[in-house]
Amino acid sequence: MESVRHSSFLFDRIFCDEPASTSSENALEGFDWHIGVVAGGWSMSKRALSVTREENFPEWYQAVVRDGDMAETSPVRGCMIIKPWGWGIWERVQAELDSRIKDTGHDNCYFPLFIPMSFIAKEAEHVEGFAKEMAVVTHHRLKNEDGKLVLDPDAKLEEPLIVRPTSETIIGDAFQRWVKSYRDLPLLINQWANVVRWEMRTRLFLRTAEFLWQEGHTAHADRDDAMDETLRMLEVYREFAENVLAMPVVTGEKPANERFPGADNTYSIEAMMQDGKALQAGTSHYLGTHFAEAQNIQYQSAEGQLTYCHTTSWGVSTRLIGGVIMTHGDDDGLRVPPKIAPRQIVIVPMLRDKPEDDALVAFCTDLEKELKAKGIRTLVDLKQLKSAEKRWNWVRRGAPVIVEVGGRDVASGNVTYMRRDRLRDGDKVVSTTMAKGEFVAGAAALLDDIQATLFAQAKARLDGNIISGIETFDALAGYFGAAQADDDAATAFKGWVRVAWSKPEGAALDAIDDRLKALKLTIRNAPLDQPAIDGQTCVFTGESAKQFVLIARAY
Amino acid sequence: MESVRHSSFLFDRIFCDEPASTSSENALEGFDWHIGVVAGGWSMSKRALSVTREENFPEWYQAVVRDGDMAETSPVRGCMIIKPWGWGIWERVQAELDSRIKDTGHDNCYFPLFIPMSFIAKEAEHVEGFAKEMAVVTHHRLKNEDGKLVLDPDAKLEEPLIVRPTSETIIGDAFQRWVKSYRDLPLLINQWANVVRWEMRTRLFLRTAEFLWQEGHTAHADRDDAMDETLRMLEVYREFAENVLAMPVVTGEKPANERFPGADNTYSIEAMMQDGKALQAGTSHYLGTHFAEAQNIQYQSAEGQLTYCHTTSWGVSTRLIGGVIMTHGDDDGLRVPPKIAPRQIVIVPMLRDKPEDDALVAFCTDLEKELKAKGIRTLVDLKQLKSAEKRWNWVRRGAPVIVEVGGRDVASGNVTYMRRDRLRDGDKVVSTTMAKGEFVAGAAALLDDIQATLFAQAKARLDGNIISGIETFDALAGYFGAAQADDDAATAFKGWVRVAWSKPEGAALDAIDDRLKALKLTIRNAPLDQPAIDGQTCVFTGESAKQFVLIARAY
Repeated sequence: MESVRHSSFLFDRIFCDEPASTSSENALEGFDWHIGVVAGGWSMSKRALSVTREENFPEWYQAVVRDGDMAETSPVRGCMIIKPWGWGIWERVQAELDSRIKDTGHDNCYFPLFIPMSFIAKEAEHVEGFAKEMAVVTHHRLKNEDGKLVLDPDAKLEEPLIVRPTSETIIGDAFQRWVKSYRDLPLLINQWANVVRWEMRTRLFLRTAEFLWQEGHTAHADRDDAMDETLRMLEVYREFAENVLAMPVVTGEKPANERFPGADNTYSIEAMMQDGKALQAGTSHYLGTHFAEAQNIQYQSAEGQLTYCHTTSWGVSTRLIGGVIMTHGDDDGLRVPPKIAPRQIVIVPMLRDKPEDDALVAFCTDLEKELKAKGIRTLVDLKQLKSAEKRWNWVRRGAPVIVEVGGRDVASGNVTYMRRDRLRDGDKVVSTTMAKGEFVAGAAALLDDIQATLFAQAKARLDGNIISGIETFDALAGYFGAAQADDDAATAFKGWVRVAWSKPEGAALDAIDDRLKALKLTIRNAPLDQPAIDGQTCVFTGESAKQFVLIARAY
Repeated sequence: MESVRHSSFLFDRIFCDEPASTSSENALEGFDWHIGVVAGGWSMSKRALSVTREENFPEWYQAVVRDGDMAETSPVRGCMIIKPWGWGIWERVQAELDSRIKDTGHDNCYFPLFIPMSFIAKEAEHVEGFAKEMAVVTHHRLKNEDGKLVLDPDAKLEEPLIVRPTSETIIGDAFQRWVKSYRDLPLLINQWANVVRWEMRTRLFLRTAEFLWQEGHTAHADRDDAMDETLRMLEVYREFAENVLAMPVVTGEKPANERFPGADNTYSIEAMMQDGKALQAGTSHYLGTHFAEAQNIQYQSAEGQLTYCHTTSWGVSTRLIGGVIMTHGDDDGLRVPPKIAPRQIVIVPMLRDKPEDDALVAFCTDLEKELKAKGIRTLVDLKQLKSAEKRWNWVRRGAPVIVEVGGRDVASGNVTYMRRDRLRDGDKVVSTTMAKGEFVAGAAALLDDIQATLFAQAKARLDGNIISGIETFDALAGYFGAAQADDDAATAFKGWVRVAWSKPEGAALDAIDDRLKALKLTIRNAPLDQPAIDGQTCVFTGESAKQFVLIARAY
């Protein structure tokens, strides 16, 4: 039996901690002190962050990252410091995805951080795509000159080294040595690594100069096998995004102008953020024989003929964490899906520096032990902070379940907890009390329910905000136009629009791209799962349409 | 009931696979074909590698790394490619050590790959130690000039960036922001990362320009707490090296001239390789307040006073894998301790492209399933290679247990396996046959026994080869002298020598260092666990001795 209290329970408890403050004016001050100490200043929203999604989505994002102890900017331009809570989420992302990558037959390897400049130059389109903003190592020594550190001109490298922006060329060079016969195929390799792309405008997790990712690289005997791999890994990403990150996505093919440099086909998973923008959350590329030809990756077929391999590559990055934040965060901070939460249940003992504290801590560590025995990642927060401060820290970090244990709970053998996915009813915080044994027995199911709820909320948002029925470019412009003049911060929620198009390439596609760019719009992808296109005309050219594509503002 | 066969079982089986080759001349050719195809050429040693430890230890090391599919050199000077088997071992090393680092209260974070040049300059000794051989990023863009990629002079960085050789300075900068009060201490952080030191002479795993490691960084209120941490992590390394890597080590303090740049005290774990040389396998540093003062890491004490923190750092790297190879490898290749083996039991079905193959594969996958259910990392090797070739590949890689399944095994319900730690009796390969159920029931204990056997062998080598009783420098030189003129390849096994010394510093220590260097010797460490020094005189200075130190050739 559980009893659900809809009350301002947490605020009451603040004043259990602070018995001096009992007037309603002080109550607000107390609230302010606990909430505002991190978020900075009084929040009219009465929420745990200083800014709401509606007020300013980009500032809200930064507040979640900062106040949720996820990451911070570093003194190195565009590079971030990932803090323990953010890193813990990334560790879970890695573990879950890595097991899927291994289950589909891939082996992990590690290739060098540096790529000789000449390697980048081998594949023509690849050069165009990547030869621009990269970190270039030119020297291998500093020297002390008049007490100042300077470059040692005697230590200039003969050939500059590029800090890898992606590893197709250096891994392709290894494939060229490793692949001899059809028996060596398919060659299925993955690596977890840091990469660097010198971005001008950076945003934590979403776009940073250095980021962390996995990059799969495979070689196959023919196009069919390589295309199967490309789509298999796209499906791995979809299943992972939806079942682990609770982030629904649309799988589809990118238009030609958005392909990876050197790819024949690029597929993506696209997720809808709470501001209606799209986030490209993962890509899978069929590279044809371009890299194989540039790098001489050939195999001897069963018939003895030397043949170029067909290769693929696919990757997801720390950008996923930005997607999780913008999919699940609310005005109290982050809500972490249980499957990737470093701590799924956090227990906060309401300590008062009194002798009763010992019994309280014993109750909490006992509860922790029982939950851990069920495989639940649990923490008793014994930090030297006021319990109200700890509680709100965990709300902002988005621990799925927060248990608060006070003297009454110990006496009654009860557990009182908050579900982070349903923190409030209106402005009031909701808590549930039940017998400890019952809580422990139901904890795994509770976490499953939170995971499912987060997914259902995000899925309803995605499904409900893909607009169809727009048949002309003017109508498209009109739909998005209201937001056109606005700046990023105040862009109205518009969702995505599904339009029919004739799939032009080359100059015609460039012209469409320019018209969309003027509206800050992009073609996200052509969904793999789409209705029949019969009789539709292209929204851009008026010609007979070949497929539907999704149009959206995007990160 | 098990029956142990001492026979040339594997060679027999080769000819089961190749029924045409039955003469004894062909037998040798068959052996050569299976063994020599990777190792290259005929081996007089009748072992799976083309060179033995005794013939040429450095070449043997390279053969193990190459033929065991551990790693290979890359086209980037000094950087290695870690291949799936080597990477799988590193993944196990990471998992085992990471859980120990977390269990001792540390959180993982991630800090930038790049360090501004000015950061390195902050701590004077650190500059001296690290400002020399480092990769320096000077530009952030290339451009296409007359069809050639060149540095874009407009994209020169205002301040060069250093690819981290270690992260004390960039992490210290964060600590300076994160530490405010005594309540924030101790601050216990770790990161897993790649680092770069521009080494002139590189050797796979042992010394590479880029390597992978974990680096712990902590801040404490006072010296005692920081020193406790320094020694706690040294002990974590010892326990990990001995219980997980099966590599016995000596813990101790490095002499002043071997300290980490900027440290007050540096401690190490030292392991004895099979050529008698020492390998520094991990270090833990007490940094005093040097970095705190250089980077202004201060806290407010309970009494309200601003005080500098005492900091530590500690790390182990992919070098450990080199240590595992040189501790456990034999003339047939690597022997991987079960706790870090990516595959603990490998099952090789002896397929013959006949209808009976189906029953054979079913037997193997059933066995795999039963072993996996017991938590044992198992693989059925279904690659399109001859089974004898597969078997020897796994011998060279050092899978702890190799099971070969032929038609007779399926018929009798038996399992025939080799223990990689006891592969041979003389030249003959030893295999054991037992009922399948019995094998599965005993598999975990078998792996434990292999782990224990590998440790016992290495421990006996270490304990039996630390020589004491040498009391003068001449005697020391005499002991090692015989090997002095030899080149690396043929250095005779000498083990380590324990001598008494007076622990001089400064110029006196430099002079000792020079004398030792002339003999290619170094002081490894002063063991924490050492006998009473009463009445001994220093082997270098003749003065009254303060402690014992270990002298050895080293990697």
